Amino acid sequence: MHVKLMVSYIGTNFFGFQRQGAKRTVQKELEDALGKFFGANIKITGSGRTDTGVHAMGQVINFALPETKEELNLYKLCSAVNHFLPADVSVCDPELHVQFNARANAKAKTYIYKCYVDKYRNAMKDTFYHRVYEMPNIAAMEEACEYLTGTHDFTAFCSDIGDKAPTRTIYSCQIKQDGNEFWFIIRGNGFLKNMVRIIVGTLLDVGAGKLQPEDIKIILHSKDRQTAGETAPAHGLVLQSVEY
Amino acid sequence: MHVKLMVSYIGTNFFGFQRQGAKRTVQKELEDALGKFFGANIKITGSGRTDTGVHAMGQVINFALPETKEELNLYKLCSAVNHFLPADVSVCDPELHVQFNARANAKAKTYIYKCYVDKYRNAMKDTFYHRVYEMPNIAAMEEACEYLTGTHDFTAFCSDIGDKAPTRTIYSCQIKQDGNEFWFIIRGNGFLKNMVRIIVGTLLDVGAGKLQPEDIKIILHSKDRQTAGETAPAHGLVLQSVEY
Repeated sequence: MHVKLMVSYIGTNFFGFQRQGAKRTVQKELEDALGKFFGANIKITGSGRTDTGVHAMGQVINFALPETKEELNLYKLCSAVNHFLPADVSVCDPELHVQFNARANAKAKTYIYKCYVDKYRNAMKDTFYHRVYEMPNIAAMEEACEYLTGTHDFTAFCSDIGDKAPTRTIYSCQIKQDGNEFWFIIRGNGFLKNMVRIIVGTLLDVGAGKLQPEDIKIILHSKDRQTAGETAPAHGLVLQSVEY
Repeated sequence: MHVKLMVSYIGTNFFGFQRQGAKRTVQKELEDALGKFFGANIKITGSGRTDTGVHAMGQVINFALPETKEELNLYKLCSAVNHFLPADVSVCDPELHVQFNARANAKAKTYIYKCYVDKYRNAMKDTFYHRVYEMPNIAAMEEACEYLTGTHDFTAFCSDIGDKAPTRTIYSCQIKQDGNEFWFIIRGNGFLKNMVRIIVGTLLDVGAGKLQPEDIKIILHSKDRQTAGETAPAHGLVLQSVEY
């Protein structure tokens, strides 16, 4: 039996999701807390890594339920694990499955990247928003989003392709605006390393007039990371949800 | 000449706004940073205190401009002070006035109190939202808001009235809902100690069916703190704006 949990975390004080020795990572904190609850070593699988500083509202993990004589109470499991976890990470929405793999079974992921426009930093926003100095051209960025949507080789939008398959499908890429805030909502079947942040950095270049919307086509075809924009900072990004 | 500044802060790691010796308060951090910029002791006046743990998006302060040979550049002032301040407090919207007192000249303040409904805590929300376990009856709370609106003796909604005048005017008291989140927006000409948090605690009692909307009338007339609800936790509250 496998337990599926949804995980939320503020990425600010984590070295990303994935375990790296003794470093403070989300995986380490989760495995420590689950280990305390079960009195056994627990190894979790996440839907995917998130970088240092990236947040999650709806990361998903699973782990094999250890042998136990007591009947599992999922509410108690979540409540107790939340008690053992530090304040900046929490679990919810427990489910029990005969078979479930958070990584292999993921069908789609949605990321949200938040920005605000201001010439001064704002302490209330800086945890979750990337600050830009001028309001970008939203219509131009929306046009650029259309070129990103669909199935493409995203090598140019990846910081370290390695031997990974470079083709991904972006189902939708939208921009919402409210006053001096705007955010990108990107849903796809999977994302390469830094792909969302490079997409956002490139869209911001389009919004600032440094690139034209149709340049996205050229960048995609180039398969050259140097042609795309900078990697936008981690703290504006949230892994919003994973679909199965 | 007086400088007016807007101040934003995450209240979590402050012992409130007002200076208390060497404790980490917003006033202390602001006076330290302004002192570094001007090379002089600066004493600020805030629009009012906020409790330990309460946040601000639009707190307002002023201070007398010290004698200086250089011409004041307000943009440089804000940028430099933001550089000297710690990450959880920031300033913006600088203005120069012949006379200005952030406390005495305040005409109205707006507070927002945010809640979410969940049986599990959520790490991404807990900095700025108070968690409740069940969705309250919003319509009943809205009816209760009508009894609070207007000019009343708010002694029953104050934790320590002392010799303060107990009469205040609430211009509006609204509730917004979005999914499992809801928030109170309260605008008035001034607020007594803990008044917004006691109002919210009492409205939540109405929403949970422990009190009826019309009980607000009885509580106001009682002038007895014991008749109102509990003081809602500080971390859900934000001083949103001050009007002059």
